Parts: sequence; C-alpha cells; structure tokens
Amino acid sequence: MTERNRLDARGDAAELVAVAHALADAARVQTLRHFRADGLAADNKDVTGFDPVTIADRAAEDAMRAVLRERRPEDGVLGEERGAEAGSSGLTWVLDPIDGTRAYLAGTPTWGVLIAVSNETGPIYGIIDQPYIGERFEGGSGQAKMTGPHGARSLAVRAARPLGEAILFTTFPEVGTPQERAAFERVAAKVQLTRYGMDCYAYALLAAGQIDLVIEAGLNAYDIQAPIAVIEAAGGVVSSWDGGDAAGGGRVIAASCPEMLDAARDLVAGG
Amino acid sequence: MTERNRLDARGDAAELVAVAHALADAARVQTLRHFRADGLAADNKDVTGFDPVTIADRAAEDAMRAVLRERRPEDGVLGEERGAEAGSSGLTWVLDPIDGTRAYLAGTPTWGVLIAVSNETGPIYGIIDQPYIGERFEGGSGQAKMTGPHGARSLAVRAARPLGEAILFTTFPEVGTPQERAAFERVAAKVQLTRYGMDCYAYALLAAGQIDLVIEAGLNAYDIQAPIAVIEAAGGVVSSWDGGDAAGGGRVIAASCPEMLDAARDLVAGG
Repeated sequence: MTERNRLDARGDAAELVAVAHALADAARVQTLRHFRADGLAADNKDVTGFDPVTIADRAAEDAMRAVLRERRPEDGVLGEERGAEAGSSGLTWVLDPIDGTRAYLAGTPTWGVLIAVSNETGPIYGIIDQPYIGERFEGGSGQAKMTGPHGARSLAVRAARPLGEAILFTTFPEVGTPQERAAFERVAAKVQLTRYGMDCYAYALLAAGQIDLVIEAGLNAYDIQAPIAVIEAAGGVVSSWDGGDAAGGGRVIAASCPEMLDAARDLVAGG
Repeated sequence: MTERNRLDARGDAAELVAVAHALADAARVQTLRHFRADGLAADNKDVTGFDPVTIADRAAEDAMRAVLRERRPEDGVLGEERGAEAGSSGLTWVLDPIDGTRAYLAGTPTWGVLIAVSNETGPIYGIIDQPYIGERFEGGSGQAKMTGPHGARSLAVRAARPLGEAILFTTFPEVGTPQERAAFERVAAKVQLTRYGMDCYAYALLAAGQIDLVIEAGLNAYDIQAPIAVIEAAGGVVSSWDGGDAAGGGRVIAASCPEMLDAARDLVAGG
C-alpha cells in the first residue's frame, strides 16, 4: 500500500478538517438548488447556453474555491470544472463538485461532492458528501466517521472474507474499454453479488463496511482522492489495477483488506 | 391502457390513504432497525436460522398485517413473505415489505416498502416508501405527491420526448433470460442514457419526472402494483411487454407517456 504522510506539519489537522466541512457546506447549497429542479435535463439549456447540471457543477466548485481563497490562500486547488491553480504551501485541495453527473441528471441520490486535501504523498484527508440524503463520510487526519439519517457513526471496513463472499460494485456494466470490461467480469464471476449504478456512493459503502470491492476504470484524480482518504482511514485499501498508487486516477480497485485487493488484482491481470 | 375503477365504493378514499400511511410507518420502524446494522450480511444467520434481511422483511410485513387486522379486517392481503389471505370486501392489500433485498443487504438506499390496495380492476392507490432517505411517493385516490428532503411536491411525469432523448432504468444488466436481456438491449441502444441498480426507486423517479422508462422482467404482483398506482396517478403508463395489464407482474414497461411505451414495446417485441 502507498504510504501517506498523514501528519503533515504544513497543515493543522483540525483546521484542514474544519475547512473541508466548510467546503462541503458551501457546495451543498449549490448542488441542492438544482437537484430534481423542474425541467432539469441535459438537453434543456438555459439562456447561458449551459445545461443545469453544468451550472450546478460550476456553481458548487466556485463556492468551494471562494472559501479556499478566504481561508487557505496559500494552498493549491485542482478542480474538475476550473482546472489547477498552484499554491505555495505544498498542500492541494482536490475537488469534484458533482461526482456522478449522470446520476444527478437522473435524480438518483448516488452522486456526491468529493473533497480531498493532499500533499506530495497523496490525499491526507477527504470527504464524500451526499447532500440530498444528508450523509457525510470523512476520513484522514484522525477522523473515520459518517453522519446521516442514523446519526453519527464510526467508519470501519467489513471483516475480511473470501472473494466468493464479496459484494462488488462498479458504476456502469461497460466499466471502460472492452478489455477493462472483460477484466471486471472475471472478478464479477467469482463474487457473491455484483451491483451497479452507485457512482462515488459505492466508495462510501465500502468505508461503511457494507460492501467489499469497488472496481472502476477511466477515473481522474479528483474522482478518487477523497474516496482513497475515506477508505484508508476506515481500514481499507485502494490501488491501481497493477498495484500502484491510485491517487492519479485511471484503473482503480478499492477493497476491504489487502487479501481481497490481491485476489481481485490477480483476476483483472489474468487474461 | 388498463382502465381501473379508482372511485371504489367499497373503500372510503381518505380512510384507505390513512391506512396505507399507517402501514408504511409500521414497516419503516422494522426496516430501519436492521438497515446497515453491524454484521448485516446474508451469510450471517442468527440463532433463529434466518439472515437479518429476512428477519427485517418478515418483521415489516407482520407489522403491516397487524395494522390491517385492526383497521381493515374485511380486506384481503397478499404479501411477499406471508402469502395470500382472502378477504370479503373485494379490496386486497398488496405488500412487499422490502423490495430490493440485495440493495438492502449492500446498504444502498434504493430499496423500498411497496404498499398497494387493489380491487378487481387492479391497484387503486399505492405507496413507494424509502425510509432511510425519508422519501414517500404516493399515487391514486386523488393523490399524486411525494414528501422527502425537499419537502412536499406534486408528482408528474416528464414531458413527452423522442425515445432518443429518454433515460432508461433497469435493476440488473442481465434483466432476466438471455432473450429478455437482448430485448432490453435493443431499447438501451436507442435511448440517451441507461442506468442500473435502482430497484423500485426507479419507478419513483419515473413518477417524479426524472426519467422516462423502466423495463424489467420476472416481477411478482407485489413488486409492481404500488408502482403502477403511483406512476398512473402521476400521468405515466405501465403495461406488460405485450401491452397487457402489468398488475400481475412478469415483464413490465413503465413509461412517461403512451408514445414512449409504444416505442419501447416495438423494440422489445422486434427480434
């Protein structure tokens, strides 16, 4: 597993956590304003020429960047909508204002706001926020917990079990290329249950001990850095399909334990 | 479309609606008690020999049946877990205490409690309840509305549009038999977006105007009667793949309008 320097002297942990929650609160206002609004549809452009999903996506990222300019002006920012902005502190905020825009468009509450703060070793703290349900999953900097309809709970991955008893998630049955789909299906053929359609919510379920495996491809850094922080804090493991660091995105496996990760990696590698 | 006698003299509409909400409230207590509980897993039998999902399923149905014995002793009951109980009133309560047990097991908030009251013409009123999110969708007997995180809203299907602009849902990519999967994929190839994994929540999204089509196979009457009532009340249409009444289950298409239903039916029928 990738070693991350989670006690980073450049950021006071409590301050980073507080700022991350402020970002999630700011994004939440923007994403909920447009979620399930009348006439929300990708083909329904308004006078700005953009669809409502893009409007919500950009408004949420802009709201988060405004908080960072105020409270963390020396940190860098990498966001899905507005690109990279260099900082001088050595810390970077990695933001996906709406992960799962197709879920958002269709009205399913499985999209999320992804917020990570990273140093040169990768994400040291992250939040997966689902504003409509009112669930927030966070991990890193000494935190591994969630709040939601059941109140506050610790996050801890599911107990280790054989691959044949695992619950596996991915968002689309296509996964990625035909080769990536075939690799995924070699794992799916061995597990107890395969489910689809959860976007970043699947990573939250892994951290919450509900499922054992998430396998995806074609990810960007901002899709996976917050899930990495949350899952690793809950005791799970995340790597690229070839066993490297997943923080840059690409092909990713997240698992409840190293043995589960290795079993899945062997199958995606095998032809 | 199937004509349903929604002004049934044998049941006062306000009383039926009140009883249905009492059933949903009773089921909610039981389903939430076990949802995301520690160690919830189908392989984790307790001393009763049953897994926690089955325990929650049966407890929720028993709680609903207890309400009916008290308040509607002359009505019949058809429930997933405890079978059929004949009545003398001509009305039958059709209950699925947890639709989407695999979703429930995996922790995704896409399962639901399905409650319908039916006469010989089919469901005249129904509820789709998602207790974890706190969303309740209802339709029939003059009602077409939802309550949830956004408050109370009317339910109305999405405006008619060409099949090429439709959002289509089914729960599993396999759909059913290989022939049923192939039929589904003929429709999926023509729509704008296909998504998976939502269980009964997809029918709620259709009634809420978020999506255009749901296609499934292998359903039971208790899987579809509540969705039929909610969708028809919201202005949508539901039929079997061959155009007959879907109230008995089997292969089902639910759509935002008759033209969308017909376009999908033509494709599932075509080889």
